[in-house]
Amino acid sequence: MAASTQTSRPTPERIFNTMVAFQETEALKAAIELDIFTAIAEGANTAVSLAAKTGAAERGVRILCDYLTVKEFLTKKGEQYSLAQDSAGFLNRHSPACLATMIHFLASSWSKKNFGALTAAVRKGGTASETGDHTKPHEDVWVNFARSMAPLTVPTAEFLAGLMGATEGHPWKVLDIAAGHGMYGITVAKHNPNARIVAVDWPSVLDVARENAAKSGVANRYTVRPGSAFEVEFGEGYDYALVTGFFHHFNTATCERLMRRVHAALKPGGKAITLEFVPNEDRVSPPVAAAFSLVMLAGTDTGDAYTFAQYEKMFGNAGFSKTTLHQIPEMPQQVLISEK
Amino acid sequence: MAASTQTSRPTPERIFNTMVAFQETEALKAAIELDIFTAIAEGANTAVSLAAKTGAAERGVRILCDYLTVKEFLTKKGEQYSLAQDSAGFLNRHSPACLATMIHFLASSWSKKNFGALTAAVRKGGTASETGDHTKPHEDVWVNFARSMAPLTVPTAEFLAGLMGATEGHPWKVLDIAAGHGMYGITVAKHNPNARIVAVDWPSVLDVARENAAKSGVANRYTVRPGSAFEVEFGEGYDYALVTGFFHHFNTATCERLMRRVHAALKPGGKAITLEFVPNEDRVSPPVAAAFSLVMLAGTDTGDAYTFAQYEKMFGNAGFSKTTLHQIPEMPQQVLISEK
Repeated sequence: MAASTQTSRPTPERIFNTMVAFQETEALKAAIELDIFTAIAEGANTAVSLAAKTGAAERGVRILCDYLTVKEFLTKKGEQYSLAQDSAGFLNRHSPACLATMIHFLASSWSKKNFGALTAAVRKGGTASETGDHTKPHEDVWVNFARSMAPLTVPTAEFLAGLMGATEGHPWKVLDIAAGHGMYGITVAKHNPNARIVAVDWPSVLDVARENAAKSGVANRYTVRPGSAFEVEFGEGYDYALVTGFFHHFNTATCERLMRRVHAALKPGGKAITLEFVPNEDRVSPPVAAAFSLVMLAGTDTGDAYTFAQYEKMFGNAGFSKTTLHQIPEMPQQVLISEK
Repeated sequence: MAASTQTSRPTPERIFNTMVAFQETEALKAAIELDIFTAIAEGANTAVSLAAKTGAAERGVRILCDYLTVKEFLTKKGEQYSLAQDSAGFLNRHSPACLATMIHFLASSWSKKNFGALTAAVRKGGTASETGDHTKPHEDVWVNFARSMAPLTVPTAEFLAGLMGATEGHPWKVLDIAAGHGMYGITVAKHNPNARIVAVDWPSVLDVARENAAKSGVANRYTVRPGSAFEVEFGEGYDYALVTGFFHHFNTATCERLMRRVHAALKPGGKAITLEFVPNEDRVSPPVAAAFSLVMLAGTDTGDAYTFAQYEKMFGNAGFSKTTLHQIPEMPQQVLISEK
């Protein structure tokens, strides 16, 4: 049965392919865990040589690589496998654009468990898991996030820093809330040598952010405030507050509560920068932003992907005078800029 | 990020979509478990009315149905959902072509567990599970198969009965090995009122086959021989032996061992009918047959999707004089006919 596209109508083939779509995730995960793509990039290109290089069974490697060829992550000529163009760019660890680590968060056992109880979540209207209240610490989940998801941030962080005018070098105080890997604040600091970043997250997550700040050479302008974003003292007089991929975990009242704290921490004229999946009013487009709502149903008590109108209302209630929406080129997320 | 097709080259979008492809399986599974497609077919077409009908939370239903709209299993106009054409045909339980039950086997916890240990299976060259020797009974797995997978057999069973010339009404004795739901043998019996079927499978699986034989009105010509296909007494003088979806669980030596038993059970000139996923010699086409090899790596000790040359050799070694290959129109499986 052939695959169909998201833009053509579903067929029995597409129904069958969806029933077994989890196999594709697991095959890609196995290939990444065994670092098959990097091994092929390094010249091991038959089942025999790949088995030798990865320490896996030849039979296992042959079957996995044939499957990856069917799914067009590899090509095969005789007994020799090659990387498809985008596998070379995005799954080979030697590539600067490698996204391979993302699978450790996106297809983590935590995420698979949440989705494995999706029927119960739909019945209940919120996650069936014990870890759905994200005002509470689930540090193992977020350390995994911080260690896995940094690659995706590169184009987005560059876009944000550009939108803010970081290279103009004004002396900024930037609050980075739920910093995670820290890459958004760190990228601002890299472009603006006069920016100082204050990062908030759970303690063990901030360890990852500090490592990244050190690697990026901005550790001397990087400080942390460990704890809950709903409780820790932010300080005040910030030029910018970054709230990236955070609001979607909570209901609107909780989002407003956080945004009031952000408002208080900003100086007059300061701006809150929100990075989010923002579906259109129809809630079924654009595809990635709209589909993200299900991830929140599966994994949170009350989180959702909110529309721009919903954010505008929440941020207005929290005291912000104006919020504008900005599309990040070729990325599924959007940026909201809110002025105090 | 937009989906791409199996025939275009992979992109970062496709890599991302594959990393989260398991979410599509779980969303479809939840919708089937809650019978959302049938509820919409019956006229409940808003989140409010669907929640009332399915007993699920309105918020949960809204988010799930929006996701199913993004994935084009539904359409949405205002607040009203409708079934996409093929959801109406294949996911609504009132449709005679409904395939919905298949998800209970294809995405069973057993199958997900097998694939969840795929890296270990690749390392080892065979399943990492305890249930990989399919000469041993795993009756819960195969009762689930028998209860879930019958819908897929309809066009294939009709094709097989046609290929055999069942409607000619010759007095046949037909051995159905690893009968499962029994639908292949039952379909032969429906078309040929002079055919008697002898079904072999584990005892609790044969209970399902007998139920289906009774529903189809052929129970009086349907007898069973419970036990292992490698040990139970088949009897002899059969005109046909059906071996459907069975060889792929075993290594070639075990397949030959079974086929020698089949040979002994057939009368001179009798035929073995094998239904299988048969990849081409390149082992990466056609897509569904080639991809099936990974399902066997994940779930069996030594099983595989074998090529026609491999089957020809095994069946020749088992004593068959000639084996021919027949493509089933619009289906991913193929039929092999072997003459004694």
